[in-house]
Amino acid sequence: MKLYYSPGACSLAARISLHEAGIAAEFERVDLKAKITETGRDYIAINPAGSVPMLVLDDGAAITENVAVLDLIASHEPRLGVSGPLGRTRLIEMLSYLSTELHIAFKPFWHGASGSEKQDAADAVAKRLNLLESRIAEPYLFGSDFTVADAYLFVMLRWAKAFRLPIPPRLLNLFELASERNAVRQALTEEAEPALNA
Amino acid sequence: MKLYYSPGACSLAARISLHEAGIAAEFERVDLKAKITETGRDYIAINPAGSVPMLVLDDGAAITENVAVLDLIASHEPRLGVSGPLGRTRLIEMLSYLSTELHIAFKPFWHGASGSEKQDAADAVAKRLNLLESRIAEPYLFGSDFTVADAYLFVMLRWAKAFRLPIPPRLLNLFELASERNAVRQALTEEAEPALNA
Repeated sequence: MKLYYSPGACSLAARISLHEAGIAAEFERVDLKAKITETGRDYIAINPAGSVPMLVLDDGAAITENVAVLDLIASHEPRLGVSGPLGRTRLIEMLSYLSTELHIAFKPFWHGASGSEKQDAADAVAKRLNLLESRIAEPYLFGSDFTVADAYLFVMLRWAKAFRLPIPPRLLNLFELASERNAVRQALTEEAEPALNA
Repeated sequence: MKLYYSPGACSLAARISLHEAGIAAEFERVDLKAKITETGRDYIAINPAGSVPMLVLDDGAAITENVAVLDLIASHEPRLGVSGPLGRTRLIEMLSYLSTELHIAFKPFWHGASGSEKQDAADAVAKRLNLLESRIAEPYLFGSDFTVADAYLFVMLRWAKAFRLPIPPRLLNLFELASERNAVRQALTEEAEPALNA
């Protein structure tokens, strides 16, 4: 497989999940502003939506949208998903909430928002983190097992820390536990040290 | 099953899909501003996220998030999904794109945005509709069969019409074809005429 990513972006959740699943993959960095990959290719020609992650399977099929990419990795490695008859639905429900509610609430922090827009965004992030805090099964979102949804949430808790937004205690515990996982450490190290051909 | 909905909101896609699948369901309207249902119940106590749709299964399990609800209906009635080994992934990818990119691009039209914010939103909607226009398999998103993703897109094309935003020709054809479907007509009639106990 091959993952197109941008350092620290939500594609980090896919990298963590690939490592957790033990799936070998190549990684190609994308400059999301210039829409150029680290090998100098036009990313819009590769992915017209211009977004990361994009996961290319060994047969060449390319999957976009983080929810679909993470769900697919969990279907390859069910340990990273949710078990039971409604398991995949519960996973998609959580991934979709993280994507449409929490992820999007961060957008003003990247897009040159004014002070009051950032305050509104901070309030929106806090409201959504508090909802997750009230629902987490602990220590991870669905209980004792780390899932691809935890990988996604971990990435956004990193953003919350970077923007000095408060993280409620159960989610902070999740963040700290996740930080100690080998797959997470490996992914963070890789994204902190771009390849020399970058 | 029971669907919590708001007339014309994205929950309309779930109603259309339930009718397409021939799944019997009750429908309870939610006032999204007051967060009260048509039977006078506090909707936040029912769904802390306060959003529609919420689908309650016959065993009482409640599913939120449109992507999860629509994917679940398609898993009950595979005719409304996408076939093949990557079928469910392709469906989730499309539903997620519709949810995180297109649906959200409409938000400023409902939230008292300024003229320039509305112009930015109109541009964002146009860009996303044009991407779908370039990718649609025709006449529906995945080809000859109507899927739950078409139900979701149909709802947003209704919004585009309501806000007088341009719809590119292949998507307009999809909209017109979908409008003639019995399940769509039934759903629109039901949401136009609230129950007398409302």
